[in-house]
Formats: sequence, structure tokens, C-alpha cells
Amino acid sequence: MFRKRHPPAGSKPGTLVIHSQAQQPVIRVMKYKPDNLEERDIAEVAELKDMLEVNTVCWIDVLGLGDEAVLREFADMFSIHPLALEHVVNVPQRPKVERFEEHTLCITRMALLGDEGVEPEQVSVFIGPNYVLTFQERCGDVFDPIRNRIRQGGPVIRNSGPSYLAYALLDAVIDGYYPLLETFGEKLEALEDEIVGNPQPAMLHAIHGAKSDLLAVRRAIWPQREAINALIRDENPLIAEPVQVYLRNCYDHCVQIMDAVDTYRELAGSLMDVYLSSVGNRQNEVMKVLTIMASIFIPLTFMAGIYGMNFENMPELHSAWGYPLLLAAMVALAVGMIVYFRRKGWLGGQRLGPHDRKG
Amino acid sequence: MFRKRHPPAGSKPGTLVIHSQAQQPVIRVMKYKPDNLEERDIAEVAELKDMLEVNTVCWIDVLGLGDEAVLREFADMFSIHPLALEHVVNVPQRPKVERFEEHTLCITRMALLGDEGVEPEQVSVFIGPNYVLTFQERCGDVFDPIRNRIRQGGPVIRNSGPSYLAYALLDAVIDGYYPLLETFGEKLEALEDEIVGNPQPAMLHAIHGAKSDLLAVRRAIWPQREAINALIRDENPLIAEPVQVYLRNCYDHCVQIMDAVDTYRELAGSLMDVYLSSVGNRQNEVMKVLTIMASIFIPLTFMAGIYGMNFENMPELHSAWGYPLLLAAMVALAVGMIVYFRRKGWLGGQRLGPHDRKG
Amino acid sequence: MFRKRHPPAGSKPGTLVIHSQAQQPVIRVMKYKPDNLEERDIAEVAELKDMLEVNTVCWIDVLGLGDEAVLREFADMFSIHPLALEHVVNVPQRPKVERFEEHTLCITRMALLGDEGVEPEQVSVFIGPNYVLTFQERCGDVFDPIRNRIRQGGPVIRNSGPSYLAYALLDAVIDGYYPLLETFGEKLEALEDEIVGNPQPAMLHAIHGAKSDLLAVRRAIWPQREAINALIRDENPLIAEPVQVYLRNCYDHCVQIMDAVDTYRELAGSLMDVYLSSVGNRQNEVMKVLTIMASIFIPLTFMAGIYGMNFENMPELHSAWGYPLLLAAMVALAVGMIVYFRRKGWLGGQRLGPHDRKG
Amino acid sequence: MFRKRHPPAGSKPGTLVIHSQAQQPVIRVMKYKPDNLEERDIAEVAELKDMLEVNTVCWIDVLGLGDEAVLREFADMFSIHPLALEHVVNVPQRPKVERFEEHTLCITRMALLGDEGVEPEQVSVFIGPNYVLTFQERCGDVFDPIRNRIRQGGPVIRNSGPSYLAYALLDAVIDGYYPLLETFGEKLEALEDEIVGNPQPAMLHAIHGAKSDLLAVRRAIWPQREAINALIRDENPLIAEPVQVYLRNCYDHCVQIMDAVDTYRELAGSLMDVYLSSVGNRQNEVMKVLTIMASIFIPLTFMAGIYGMNFENMPELHSAWGYPLLLAAMVALAVGMIVYFRRKGWLGGQRLGPHDRKG
Amino acid sequence: MFRKRHPPAGSKPGTLVIHSQAQQPVIRVMKYKPDNLEERDIAEVAELKDMLEVNTVCWIDVLGLGDEAVLREFADMFSIHPLALEHVVNVPQRPKVERFEEHTLCITRMALLGDEGVEPEQVSVFIGPNYVLTFQERCGDVFDPIRNRIRQGGPVIRNSGPSYLAYALLDAVIDGYYPLLETFGEKLEALEDEIVGNPQPAMLHAIHGAKSDLLAVRRAIWPQREAINALIRDENPLIAEPVQVYLRNCYDHCVQIMDAVDTYRELAGSLMDVYLSSVGNRQNEVMKVLTIMASIFIPLTFMAGIYGMNFENMPELHSAWGYPLLLAAMVALAVGMIVYFRRKGWLGGQRLGPHDRKG
Repeated sequence: MFRKRHPPAGSKPGTLVIHSQAQQPVIRVMKYKPDNLEERDIAEVAELKDMLEVNTVCWIDVLGLGDEAVLREFADMFSIHPLALEHVVNVPQRPKVERFEEHTLCITRMALLGDEGVEPEQVSVFIGPNYVLTFQERCGDVFDPIRNRIRQGGPVIRNSGPSYLAYALLDAVIDGYYPLLETFGEKLEALEDEIVGNPQPAMLHAIHGAKSDLLAVRRAIWPQREAINALIRDENPLIAEPVQVYLRNCYDHCVQIMDAVDTYRELAGSLMDVYLSSVGNRQNEVMKVLTIMASIFIPLTFMAGIYGMNFENMPELHSAWGYPLLLAAMVALAVGMIVYFRRKGWLGGQRLGPHDRKG
Repeated sequence: MFRKRHPPAGSKPGTLVIHSQAQQPVIRVMKYKPDNLEERDIAEVAELKDMLEVNTVCWIDVLGLGDEAVLREFADMFSIHPLALEHVVNVPQRPKVERFEEHTLCITRMALLGDEGVEPEQVSVFIGPNYVLTFQERCGDVFDPIRNRIRQGGPVIRNSGPSYLAYALLDAVIDGYYPLLETFGEKLEALEDEIVGNPQPAMLHAIHGAKSDLLAVRRAIWPQREAINALIRDENPLIAEPVQVYLRNCYDHCVQIMDAVDTYRELAGSLMDVYLSSVGNRQNEVMKVLTIMASIFIPLTFMAGIYGMNFENMPELHSAWGYPLLLAAMVALAVGMIVYFRRKGWLGGQRLGPHDRKG
Repeated sequence: MFRKRHPPAGSKPGTLVIHSQAQQPVIRVMKYKPDNLEERDIAEVAELKDMLEVNTVCWIDVLGLGDEAVLREFADMFSIHPLALEHVVNVPQRPKVERFEEHTLCITRMALLGDEGVEPEQVSVFIGPNYVLTFQERCGDVFDPIRNRIRQGGPVIRNSGPSYLAYALLDAVIDGYYPLLETFGEKLEALEDEIVGNPQPAMLHAIHGAKSDLLAVRRAIWPQREAINALIRDENPLIAEPVQVYLRNCYDHCVQIMDAVDTYRELAGSLMDVYLSSVGNRQNEVMKVLTIMASIFIPLTFMAGIYGMNFENMPELHSAWGYPLLLAAMVALAVGMIVYFRRKGWLGGQRLGPHDRKG
Repeated sequence: MFRKRHPPAGSKPGTLVIHSQAQQPVIRVMKYKPDNLEERDIAEVAELKDMLEVNTVCWIDVLGLGDEAVLREFADMFSIHPLALEHVVNVPQRPKVERFEEHTLCITRMALLGDEGVEPEQVSVFIGPNYVLTFQERCGDVFDPIRNRIRQGGPVIRNSGPSYLAYALLDAVIDGYYPLLETFGEKLEALEDEIVGNPQPAMLHAIHGAKSDLLAVRRAIWPQREAINALIRDENPLIAEPVQVYLRNCYDHCVQIMDAVDTYRELAGSLMDVYLSSVGNRQNEVMKVLTIMASIFIPLTFMAGIYGMNFENMPELHSAWGYPLLLAAMVALAVGMIVYFRRKGWLGGQRLGPHDRKG
Repeated sequence: MFRKRHPPAGSKPGTLVIHSQAQQPVIRVMKYKPDNLEERDIAEVAELKDMLEVNTVCWIDVLGLGDEAVLREFADMFSIHPLALEHVVNVPQRPKVERFEEHTLCITRMALLGDEGVEPEQVSVFIGPNYVLTFQERCGDVFDPIRNRIRQGGPVIRNSGPSYLAYALLDAVIDGYYPLLETFGEKLEALEDEIVGNPQPAMLHAIHGAKSDLLAVRRAIWPQREAINALIRDENPLIAEPVQVYLRNCYDHCVQIMDAVDTYRELAGSLMDVYLSSVGNRQNEVMKVLTIMASIFIPLTFMAGIYGMNFENMPELHSAWGYPLLLAAMVALAVGMIVYFRRKGWLGGQRLGPHDRKG
């Protein structure tokens, strides 16, 4: 949740912290007009100089943040403010929108479900007058559907400017939360069934894990919502008028995701109660067994103890019917106890049968 | 709560996800003036062209979202924005109001109590200058009372424009929450009685279920309230002035429903405490039985054990009064213990009697 | 909390639901000027026509909502909007203020402490230019002090217009919450004493009941506060300028009541913890008794068991001192155990003595 | 928390409720100019008439609210609104600021730590153009430092007008909360140490008491903050410009006190958890003792029981080594059990040693 | 958390409380222009007079608040308002920004992790037109990196005015929270592992401590955020335009820190649940051992007791097969019990194995 990518306190603002395992940047460029598309990977930042043209959208996608020199070249070419570059590199930053003179920066956070819970990844999007510049931490394929839409000449995306492209990227990032939520929903439902059936400490751990993950998702999506709202509210000349409707849609998705996250968090909290109560129920069962065993046998053992005494003057011992009568009395007592416990409801199925589960 | 009706991330906005089990659309049209009513089911969307007239309200009710072609035809005829159509089809969406140039879209969510808890259904209402276009997921009868009011020539509904009709539909959707709440209220009261009488694990499950359902209702009604507020606040030329009072009434109902839901949620939370405490009380009772049995018989058994020893030099064994005296001592001890426990309040009714229930 | 007084979904707005047990309306009229008072009960609504005069305040108090015809007559005479009439009749409504052209409607909720907890009753007040029209569910006496002030010719009330009378009525309704709160306070204090002394399941029930009641009071007083605020804030020509100060006072009372309710709710929540902990303490005591009994007698019984064995070669059995020595050893062991438990603090008073109650 | 000083519902507004134990008013007057000070106690309200002069600050401090006639005389002389007088007398009122034509009324609440928890006392301050009129419930000495500053001719207080004096009084009231908070802090720390060392039910009671007291303080300080904010925000001609900075300082103190109160409340809540857990830990210990005793001796007793049987054909009984071998086996079993329990960590110190307390 | 540095109630505002252990002030001055740097420690405040020049930034850093005379000299020289000086000296104050005529005061709180939890230290920063005056409680090295940047002639810091220097100081204070948060994160993760493995009461104490510390951090960072926001929002002529972007960055850091603190607090709360549940699990295990032991041996002991009775007429005793058959029956019963418990899942590993930890 809190990776160590912060420069030491008192550093000059704009100091970059390049992670030792960060990938070397790969630069993929798509330049398109309604009737033309040029797509290639470039090796040198300088090659970009000739590609930026009026009335053409140029999408420069930088995958990997491992080379400070390359990042600084980008900063020079696109007049990126030192703090903006710091935001791009010293991940994770809080999602937000910041307007600069020549472009607007959107910091967003993608949430992918990896092997060790939710794995956030930051995507930074600069929206310029005729370009979109994106920085990702790793090579991934979440933007491939958008590349395909551009390649296939989708009329809306080809005819709209860079703000529509930026919207499409933001939308893809946010839509990536939906499968995550479905996974959570299925996990919680599965957990509920298991907990009712057979509560195990590992499940508590799983609930705790789900709560942490949901918390992480909430912390990621909440500022994203704010950021998109800022894009809609501020009259930003870089955001074309018709894109506003699309951004509102994107905003609605954020709210919907937050609703679902909050619901899941409350359900997880409620599951915790169910778990604790199921465990308490088990404990109760254990204690009932003990009580029943002890209550039946302790008096019987006492009766046997009586006639194990060595007093000389115990007439019962000499009677021929003493032993069978005592055995009969013991059986009667035991049966009486069992009947009593059955009446109290301590014997017989207090386990949750399948037909009990709808109250 | 979270059905899979979301297109894959990165899809073109406006992509429709038609559920495989969605019903084929049935189109029911009512066209009325103060002194005239025409009502029929139509098969082709094109038939509508001639029906839209000035000074006439035309209510087109589409039941079932199973045919993309038909839905696209509607979109063409009524100039529905691709995103608006997406909202209508890719249910469930968050309730909201969105203004477009030619009409206003209200997304609302109906909540019916089905066999498996609360079953939400989305109703989308387009309010146009001379028409109301509604889309429902399933054929249902929640709007039949309104149809009857139109058929019977109710003076208010016949003389008012489409915004009054839209209000009537919204109001019917929201009024549908009242019986739901009554059911919740009765369920919680019944649960309370059962929990105090005889707490069972299945009841915990029922409380958990009620809390989930109430959460779902809250998530449905909260944005509805906001949406109606937006309709009232924004000066929308499509909403006639006298309809404002009615919408405020509708808004009040939303608030009242939310109040009731919040109350029920707090009561359900409090019931959880009562349940846990009742279970704890039971456990306490079990332990008391064990303690009483053990405390009475363990010392007695020890005394019997003493006189079961085989020491040669035990003068008591040879006395004629040894045995009866020991028995008398045992009875005295047992009685003493019982008196002691009764004084401690461990014996006798700590169960909740009916006269105890009003503190 | 949620009585069934809602018309079926889809009904025409303004449909009245007359409860079968509603009282037949009694109409009491007081008409006063600074120097004149006329007071009588009337049988027909039409009689009112002559009573409304300029510069005279006419207070029409309708007690009982059981006759739709009478209510409709009032609606006609005073031009009451159908929705306003619905609010008056289909109780309970959320307290609120609604301005209409000719008058302003205040819905308020009285809370009386009846036999079955808090019993809410709705009082609806129409403030007109020269009249105040009130509707109550039942005949009650909460307004009698105000009638007396009018009869006794109280100079302030006689010289002020209808808005002052309306204020006096609102104030009486809100002041009615104070005795309720005192009752709650006393109940909670009594409960606290009992819980610490001798926790019983019925007390849990009482706490749960108090929490429900406090919740109901909160839900009633919160919108009342908002409603009075709306009266103060909106520049309503029907509210005379000097009445504003009085309304602010009334508003302060609402806030004070809400403060007290919130305090009591937190205290009730805290009492729940005290109860649970007291019960846990009891359980602990039960377990200690069991442990002490078992720990003392189980080893002794074992020792007796040893010398109850029938081995031929047990020299102790033949010694004359065997038996007394064993008895001495047993006494020593028992005393040792008791000392050990006393050191651990398990024996002796962990009960909460009176001198312990101030930590 | 909720003393019965409210007039019956429906009373005329402005009705005073004089508490039977209220003190008779003592009137102390200080009249000062930069270079002059006149100080005396007066017996008749009428004496004040000559004391009010332009360019002189006259502080009239009324201690005790037990004489309605005197209070009414003050109301007449200073044109106090009936409701304002009610606020002064029917204590406790919610702290607030109310502007009247001739003066501004500040209701504040002092919190002193008495023998029975927090004892609130209301101080009402009227700020006029050339006077400050204060009403206190009891004779106290919280304002003595201010009297001394005036007597010693403190240049700031002597040269500033009545609003500075009012500020000084408010500030003294609010500063009175600091020692209270320190007491709470020390109490909670002491409690924490005791709870970890030896949890007792009385401590739970103490936590509950501390929570109630903190709640009372919070309810007192929150509206005070609002009231001071209102004094700062509203451009009140009676509040001199340079006093604004001082009032902001006073406001900051309120916020700081609320912060501390909230912190203490969270700590108290957390302490409750620690208490419950400590108790649970104790209970666990009790159960372990029982289990260890039973687990060791029950099998041994069984073995002794075997050889206490009277079968004729039990060859072990006749062997010379039977008895010593059995004793050896018993010792071995007991030792084995002890080793097993030690391995499980049930024997040996799970008590919280002093070196464990820093995790 | 709440050190006693408040003057007694009723004191003159501006009264300074010098702590007996406060350090004697050390005054370090840095005076720089783009091309010039003068750095020295001064002994007398009067020496500063000549150092303040136009177009030069003079940073006066006062370390230690132990000498009232020196502090008053500073107040005179820089026209510090008595209340501002009080804020500087009577630490801790709530972080805030206050504008005075000649300078702006920022109160901030540093949080360092010392031996006894979080140790707050107040840093007060006066921003003037050509100077920055800072007061610290102790000599520390948190500002050394900034001193080095000035010494090394960092172009940004040397060319910007005092507001940039103030920003750099604020930023260093806030960046100091990051390592603190990392420590918390590691501590909580370590705790989680320990709790699942082997829950000990000391861990509960550690959770409680972490919650208190996080609360303290939250209380420190929240008003800091507000203060920085006030600096950005208010158009303060002392804050240069380009510094605004940097302050926004600083604000974002505050929000990010608060997010992390809130996350950690929720995790700590959830850990408490895990702890309680782990302890309950242990208790359950203890009870199962007891139940198993008792359930197996109590019936066996009873059987042995039967044949230890001394009835004359017990034919089994005389049979040669009686003893071996009984032993066989006992073994069979014991095995049956074990099988039964194994089926119930009470025997065998319910401990949380490492492979269970990912649900």
C-alpha cells in the first residue's frame, strides 16, 4: 500500500526516485487524422519533434519509468513542470487533475487483481492541444482495445481531438475496476457459504484481507471521482465540449464503483459478525457435550462410589436384588437426564441445516 | 447486487450488452388528449412516426430489452444519445436525471420483494415535449393503476402534459418501496420475538440477510432522491410549473423511505447485539448446569471414595452408625450446596419470562 | 413506527386513507381580537364562513381525521391543495413547512410517552392571513394552556396575529419533548444501577427498547428543526417580524432536544457494553467456582482412589497411621489449594461493592 | 445532565423557573476608565442608574439567580427581551450568541470538575455599548484574575471597551476547560495501567463515567465554538475591531479543546476493548487451570478405579510389583501431561510482564 | 499528548509559559541573494538590525524557547502580536495560518518517532517581506538539507523570495511524516503476522498504542492541511505567485498522509478483531481438550466404579473373563469416542497452518 518512493525530507522539489526494478521505457507513438494513421515505436525522444502537427492527434505512450534521462528529455520537449514530472515518476500519487499552461495532467490509478491482492498501477495522462502523452509503470494490455479502435478507424475516436482520446483512456482505467468488483462479490459470497458451514480461522484472515483490499480500492477510486469532476467543472479549453457528456458518464461509473465498494465493505463487516457468532456457536456445542457427559456420569459414578464403600453395616450389599436394582436405578437416572436435556433442546440438531437458511 | 452487464474495459462508449435471458420488447402505446384516448400495442417502431402530435401526450412503454435492433431504431427516431441508450440497456445503472437537447432522461430503480430478497428492476423514462418514452426490463403491472387513471379519463392526468405523466410514473415507482418497508418492519419484529424466545443461528443469517437487503434499498433510494431533487432544482422547460409541487411531494417520500430504511438498519444492528447476548445467556445457563452438577457431586464422590479405601485401621467402617451418618452428611452437604446456589441466583428462572419484557 | 396509511402505489395523488379507528372530527373555534373573544364548537364547516374577519384571529382546531367529507369541505373552503390535504390525513408524514399561495402548512409531530413506548401524533398547522387551522389525530389537552392564555386575555397573544398563535402551538408541541427526555434520563440511570447490581436479560431488552424509542424521537425532531429553520429563513409574509425571535427560540429548543437525544443514545450504547461486560463477569464467576471445586476435589478423589485399590502388596494399608496420615495430607492439600486461589484473587470479593463505584 | 428547569409545555414564553435552591443574587459592580476605578457591591438595582456613563466601562456581575423580582428589575433597566431573560434564568441553555437592538447576549457554559463528575454552570454575558452585564448561577472565583487585572490597572483591559472585557470573560470560561482535560488525561492513563495490571469491574464503570463526562464536555464546547464564530463573523458594532484577533484566539482554543476531547473519547473507547480483552484473558487462564487439573487427574483416577475393582481374576493385584509399577506409571503419565501442556504454552507466564508492555 | 503549557485561566492574553526544561535559544542566521550567502550564529537579537535588507532573504532560525527576554526582543524587533508570540511559545498549538499586517504566521507540527511513540514538535514560521523567522523547540537536523541547498547555491531557492523558503520548510516538515508512516505500516504488518501465529496480550497493547499514535498524527496533519489550504486560497501578497504550485503539491502530500493514516487506523481496528478472534480460537481449543479428556475418561471411570462395588451378588466378578472383557469394552468405548470426536473435527489440526493463510 505504501511503497517507498518518496525522496528524503528536505529534498529539492522535483527530485525523481527511480525504482531499481523499474522497467526501461518503451515509447509507442500513434499519430492519426480522420483518414490517416501512423504507428511506430521510437527509440529517441528527439524523433518526436517532427511528429507533432496541427489537426493531428499524436498519442505518445511511455511504458516503464526506469530511465531518468529519457524522462527529463520528455520534460524538456513538452515543458513539463518539475513537480508534474515528480508526480509521474514518484508513484503512487493520489489521483488528481492539475492544469498547467500548455497541458493538463491527469493522474489516475489502475487496479488489477494480481496474485497478492490488488495491485495498483499509476497511469499519468498529459492532455495537450494536439497530443496525449501517457506514462505507465509497466507494459500492459489495458489500452489495446483503444489502439484497435484507432486502427480500425472508429469514426468517433478518429474525428475527435485529444480530449476524447484522453477520455477513452480514463474510461478504460475505470472500467478495469468492474471485473475486480465482481471478483470481490464472488469471494464474499463464497466466504459466507463456507463460514456458515464450517468456520475456520483462515476465513477470518480472508475477511480481513478483503477489507484491506476494498479499502485500497476505495482510496484509489475516491480521488479519481474528484479528479474527473474537476475536469468537468473547470472550463478547460483543452476539453472539447462534446467530451463533457462522456466524462459525466465516466464520473457516474466512479460513483457506481464506490457504491459497490461501500456495500461490499459493509457486507464484509457483517460477515465478521457472522463468523464470530458461528465460532461462538461451535464453542457452545463443545460445552454442551461436556455438560451432558458430566451431568449424566458424575451422579452415576457417585452412586457406584457409595456401594464401593467398605462399611460393615451396609444391608443393601447383602441383598440379592441390590445390584440389579442399582443398575436399574442408574439406567433410569441416565434416561431421565437425557430426556431432560432433550427437552431443553441441548440434544439434537442445533446445527444450521440447509432448510434453516432462509429465516 | 452486481450483475455482469458491463461491456469489457476499453469498449467503445455506447456498446450495448444484451442479456441472453432478456425479454423480447413489447411496445405499448397510449396517446391521449383531454377528450380522446387511443391505446394499442405496435409491432414496428416505424408505426410511431404518425402518432406523435402537438398537444397530445404519447406514452410509449417498451417492456423488455432483448432486441438490439429495436432499441437502435428507437434511438434513431427519438435522437437518443448513444450513452443514454447504454444507460437504458446496460442495467443496473445508478438512478439519475440527465438532460439532453430534445428530452430529459430519468433512470429509476424499482424494488420488488421477490423470492430471493429484494429484486431491483430499472425503469428508464424519457420526457419529451409531447411524449414519454419508458423502458422496463420485464412485463410487470406496476404501471397498470396509471393506465387505468388515463383510461377512466382522470381530469388531472388527461389535462396535464407529459411531465405530469412522468411524475405519476416516478411516484408509482417510489410508492412501490412502501410495501417493501412494511415487510421489513414485520420481519424484524418477528425476528425480535423469536430471538428473545429461542435464539438460533438461522436467525443471525436472517439478520445478515435483512441488513444486506436494506443496504440494497438504501443504495437504490439515495440517488433517486438526488435525481428528483435535480429535476426540481434545475429549471427544466420540459417540467411544467404545477408539476413542481407534485415532485416535491415525491422527494418527500424518498426522504421518508430513507428515514425508515436507516431506522430499520439501526434496529437490525441492535438485534444483532440482542442475538449475541441471548446466545451468551444460553451459554451461561449451560455452564451453570455443569457447575452445579459438578459442585454437588464431586465432593460427595470424594466422601464415598474415602470410605472405599482399604485401610485396615478405619474405625468408622466398623461402627454400625457409620453408613447412615455418612449418608446423612451427604444429604446435608447436597442440600447446603443447593441452598447456596439458590442464594446466588443460579437456580431458578433467569429465563426471560413474558412479564419481564417491558423493563 | 410505520403504520399502514399509504395509498396503494400508482394511486392518484391526493388520495386520502381514512383509518378505520380514526376519530370523528370535532371542530373547536376560537375567534379573538385584543378586546374580544368568541369560543365555540361548531357542527358544520359552513358555519365558519361568517367567522373569518379582517383584524381578527380565528383559530379552527379540528380534532380527529375520521370523516373524509368534512375534510374535503375544509379543503374547499380554505383552498387547500390536494397534496396538502393528503399530508394532513395520511399520517405520519415527515415534519416540514410548505408554502402555498394563500397559507403556509407546518406538519409537526408530537411525541407522548404512552403505555407502549413513544406514541407519535401528527399536528398539522395552516397559517393564513387571519386564521390558524390545525388538525390533530386525537382529542388531547396539550393545547389547553394556550387556550387558557387566550381566555385570560394574555396581552401578547391577544395583540399578535395568527403567526404568533402558530408559534405558540409549535412551541407547545416541541416543549412536549422535554418531559419525555426526563423520563428517558431517569430510565437510563435506573437501568445503569440495576445492570451493575444484577444484570438480567430483560434489561438488555429494555436498553434495546430505549434505543428504538430514542431513534424514533430523533427521527421526529430532526425534520422539525429543519422545518422551523425554513420558517425563519424564508421571508414569509405570513410570519410577522417580531415572531422571528420567538421562532429562533423554538429552533434552539429543537437543537437542545436533539443534543439530549444524541447523548442518551450514546449512553444507551455504552450501557450495552456495561451489560455485556457484567454478564461476562458473572460467567467468569461461575467458571471460577467450577474450577475451584474441581481443582480441590479431583486430586483428593484420586488419592482416595489409590487406597481403594485391591493390590495385595500395599504396605500403607496395613499401617495403623496410614489412614490418619492420608487424611492429614488431604487437608493440607485442600488448604494449600485454597491459599493458592486466594493469592490469585479468585476467592473473595470481586463483586462490585458500593465503594468501588467511583473509580 | 438534564436538570428540570423547563416550564410546563404551553407556558407563556418568557416564564421564569426559579430553582428552590438558587442563591439570592449578589450584585458586584466595577466601573473603570483608563485612569479611574470604582468598585462596590450594590443592594438595589436602581443604584445602577447613575453609574452608566459614556466612555466608561461598567461591569455588573450578578451572582445567583434566586430572586425573580431583582431579575425583572434588571430586565426593565437594560431592556432585556423576555426570551433573553428566560435564557439567563432557565439554565442550562445551549451556548449561543443572540443580537438584540441594544446589546448582544452570549450564553456560555463553564465546566468545573466537582465531586460528582463535571459540573456545568451557565454564565450569561450581555455586551452593551458602555456596560457588560453578567449573570452566574453561583458565587465562584473564576473571574477573580480578571478583577485583579482591572484593579492593577492592566493597560490593555483598562483602555479597551466592553467588548474586550467580554472577551476576557469568555476566555476565562474557556480556559477553565484545560485543567479539566488534564484531569481526564491523567485519569485515563491511570486507568490504562490498572486495567492491564488487574482488570476490575469498577474500572469498566470508571470508563463509562469518563465517556459520559467527555460527552458532556463536548456538548458544552461545541456550541460555544459556534457562538464565538458567530461573534467573529457577524459584523457586530458592539465588538471593537482589535478584539477580533483575540476572539479568533478564543475560537482556536475551543477547537483545540474539542480535538482533545475527541482524542480522549477515542482512547476511552479503545480502553474498553483493552478491558474486555484483559477480562477474556483472565477467563482463559481460569479455564486453563481447570483443564490442566482435570486432564492430569481424571486419567489417573481412572487407573486407580481399575485396580479398585473386585474381579476375582485380576492377576496384577497379586503381583508384588503391581502397586509400585502402577504408581510409577501414574507419575510418568502426569509428567508427560505437564510436559505436553508446557509445550502448548499453557503453563508458564502468559501474564503481561512489565517488559512486554512496549510491543 | 497534552502537555501543561497553558497559563492559568483568566491570565492576560499573551502570557508566556516557559517550560523549565526548555532549551536556551540558539539563533542561526542565513542571509542570501542569488549570488551571495552570509551565514552565522548570533548572540544578541540586536545584531539582526543591520542584516535585514531589501532584495535579500534573511532566514533567522531560533532553536529553543527557554528565554523569555530574548523572545520579547524578537517580538519588539519584528512587531509580533502578543497572541502570536503566545502561539509560538505556549506549545503545542493547533497548526494554523494567521495573517498579521507585517507578516504571516504559520504554526506547523513536526512528528518524529522517538523512543516513546510519536514525539510532536512545533515549528513556527513567520513569513515577512524579506525575512523568514522560524522558532523550533529543540535543536534538530530536519532543516539541514535545506541549509545545504542554500549553501550549494541551488538556483531555484536562491532566486526565489522568502515565500519559497517558507514553502521549503513546510515541505520538509510534512515530508517528515512519510518515514513515520512507513514505520507504522511495517509495525502493523509485523503485528498481524504475530497475532495470527501466537496472540499475546502484549500485542493488544501494541495495537492500542498504534491507534493512539495514529490518532495523534491525524490530529497533527488535519489542521496542517487546512492551514496550507488557507495559504493557497487567501490572496496573500507575501506568497509569490509561482510558489502557489509548490504549495498545492504540499497540500496534496498532506491529503496523501491523511489517507494513509486513515487506512492504517482502519487496519488497526480490523487487527483488533483478528486478535480477539484468535484469542477466542485458543480458548475454544482449551475447552475442546477438556471436553475430550472428560468425555473419554468419565464413562470409563464410571465402569470401573461399578465393579468396585461390594455387592455380594455380582456374578461378573466371579467370572474368569469378566476383567479382560471389561478392559476390552473400555478400549472399545475409548476408541469409539476418539473416532466420534475426530469426525466432529475436534481432533486434528484446526490451528492455522501456513497454507491456510490465503483464503
